[in-house]
Amino acid sequence: MPHPSTPPTAGRVGDVRRQNLALVLAGIHRNGGVTRAGLAADSGLTKASVSSLVADLLESGLVCEDSVARDGERGRPGTGLVLNPARGALAAEINVDHLAVGVLDFAGQLSFHESLERRNRGSRPGELLPLLVDMAERAAAAAAASGIELLGGELTVPGLVDAERNVVLSAPNLGWAGVDLSGELPKLLPGAPFGVSLSNEANSAALAELWHGHGAVFPDFLYVSGEVGVGGGLVVGRRLFAGPQGHAGEIGHMVVHPEGPPCACGGRGCLETFAGQDAIYSAAGIEQDPPRMGRLLNRLSDGDEGAVSAVEQAGRYLGIAVASTARVANVSAVVLGGHFAALQEWIAPALCQSLEHYAPGLVPGGNVVFSGLGQTGALIGAAATSVRRILGSPYELIP
Amino acid sequence: MPHPSTPPTAGRVGDVRRQNLALVLAGIHRNGGVTRAGLAADSGLTKASVSSLVADLLESGLVCEDSVARDGERGRPGTGLVLNPARGALAAEINVDHLAVGVLDFAGQLSFHESLERRNRGSRPGELLPLLVDMAERAAAAAAASGIELLGGELTVPGLVDAERNVVLSAPNLGWAGVDLSGELPKLLPGAPFGVSLSNEANSAALAELWHGHGAVFPDFLYVSGEVGVGGGLVVGRRLFAGPQGHAGEIGHMVVHPEGPPCACGGRGCLETFAGQDAIYSAAGIEQDPPRMGRLLNRLSDGDEGAVSAVEQAGRYLGIAVASTARVANVSAVVLGGHFAALQEWIAPALCQSLEHYAPGLVPGGNVVFSGLGQTGALIGAAATSVRRILGSPYELIP
Repeated sequence: MPHPSTPPTAGRVGDVRRQNLALVLAGIHRNGGVTRAGLAADSGLTKASVSSLVADLLESGLVCEDSVARDGERGRPGTGLVLNPARGALAAEINVDHLAVGVLDFAGQLSFHESLERRNRGSRPGELLPLLVDMAERAAAAAAASGIELLGGELTVPGLVDAERNVVLSAPNLGWAGVDLSGELPKLLPGAPFGVSLSNEANSAALAELWHGHGAVFPDFLYVSGEVGVGGGLVVGRRLFAGPQGHAGEIGHMVVHPEGPPCACGGRGCLETFAGQDAIYSAAGIEQDPPRMGRLLNRLSDGDEGAVSAVEQAGRYLGIAVASTARVANVSAVVLGGHFAALQEWIAPALCQSLEHYAPGLVPGGNVVFSGLGQTGALIGAAATSVRRILGSPYELIP
Repeated sequence: MPHPSTPPTAGRVGDVRRQNLALVLAGIHRNGGVTRAGLAADSGLTKASVSSLVADLLESGLVCEDSVARDGERGRPGTGLVLNPARGALAAEINVDHLAVGVLDFAGQLSFHESLERRNRGSRPGELLPLLVDMAERAAAAAAASGIELLGGELTVPGLVDAERNVVLSAPNLGWAGVDLSGELPKLLPGAPFGVSLSNEANSAALAELWHGHGAVFPDFLYVSGEVGVGGGLVVGRRLFAGPQGHAGEIGHMVVHPEGPPCACGGRGCLETFAGQDAIYSAAGIEQDPPRMGRLLNRLSDGDEGAVSAVEQAGRYLGIAVASTARVANVSAVVLGGHFAALQEWIAPALCQSLEHYAPGLVPGGNVVFSGLGQTGALIGAAATSVRRILGSPYELIP
């Protein structure tokens, strides 16, 4: 419920104004081009309060006036307000087989993107971070050249993180455990007013789907990230369900066969041991040398039986884990990304059949969809999270 | 954030007072014996506002003054306020092998409890409900004889429910699908001002653990209900995580073996097919005639190998499902109820070993605990939910 706006003074009143600044900014984010009158009507604040809040937001540089008047009362037309497309956030990604950086502007465009293929399994943080800092510098320079000021950023990694302390707790496919990045993160975007945070790659990709993908249709879904590891993110009621420590959605380590092979997590029979990239390559008899995905896709196109049955097996076990997750979390839609999206043609029938076999009617075929965001899902989600963090605390930029 | 209290008038101001009535009542619920001065300090409302709100609550009969003065400022001592122990809620339960009713008073005591052993598999609703109405009448009479006025109630069933429409969507172990109880529920407690709601038995038992059991230690846990079926409830951040349609926590239908037997849900290899009561009796070679639990416990005490291995198998598969749930929902504690609690001595070692085998370190042994609420867990949870619903809307009783 909005509180009456009052000028900023000490203590509680300042809090109220902070809250109202975020409220008005959220209104502009939700409804780009809205007028001050529209914001007043939506928020319940007076027009005078809205005008004063908007003046502060314009001064902060977070919003700007749109030249086109979108609505207008009798008399003079209102001026539309939009998030300033000349502001943005940086995203950086460490994954098992690549590093990447990207810039998302406040208009929601991924205006810069660079990816570096690299085998990162067993790489030391001290070896990877300098590479990533170089890439981030190029991204920031490209943003500056386009007139975009970067206010904050997020690094996303394929493992469990403690986002409060900026520690990677466990990323078995990198070979990382208890890696403290609190000293490294600021180097990715020096001096950024909102700093650089840390997140899990599958959660970031799930949020990208929510805000820029299938979230337009499904308010609740499981996102499954197919990389070397298999990760996941649960979206419930248009929010990420992160669980008590922020580690929910780890579908890759659900047990899908009690007598399955040992897993990097220390357990056995995990989904990842059947549906992770290495598991599929190995089942298809494809050796270590890259590009293994290209060779797998070629064999599938040729109808190679070993390749087809390797992918079908992955789809069958994926169906078991999705069915079990649907039972526990009560979601009835699944979005598949990473290599699952690349393998859609061959994996979808096996997955849908498995779902119907193990949990009839629970996840209808029309609710099994594939990500259209490609390799950039996690980057977009990480940057979009940073943008939302900035928009949630506009008062940081207001003197 | 509390709003300044104002006398009730039309529209918005009335809403503010409603909110403040609930706020003050929640303060009394949380802290029985609190004084008006203590409530004012906790809530940020003025003492005058609190006094006026408390006057309304006293008139509603929801709270009463405690004769003992618990604190006191200089000058006259304050009078303590408590929830009125002469108000309460009714709970009713339909389960596969019993019907039950109970009365929970506002002091949190289960002051009446009646259970009827009965094979309800395949029973028609029209056959069961009249029996339950008779039992509810006896419960209400017993409550009245003890001076307890019942203000509302809840019926809890072993299946998925639509709580908005009061429909049992699916209870495969009863053989029910799409059973509309909206006409039947009011008969359980005619004229009750807060009516009678409908809930899932495992969710009710999970809430009973949260409020009256292991929730004192664990803010986040999976509750597993062992009855003929295996159900579950997820508590995250001291709240039930119900999922988009209220069906989350259905651990009984997670797939724990891809080649497992067919299940009543239409799937196969579900936990229930290995760890439900019938599955254990059947694996132990115990026939249909009751009391099968007594015979199983006797054989276990005698060290009968078939019985021991049947229970260990159930524990092993239970461990797989708990491990997978811990991955997806990020909970690291599990509370086991129903027959799992009765079998604690024999099932706990197999369960803990399985957890450690499939997900090392995820759910430490000290976080595997057994319910102490016995058969009454679901009843207590259903009645306590009704009590909380009543306390959330005190204005319904204030003219």
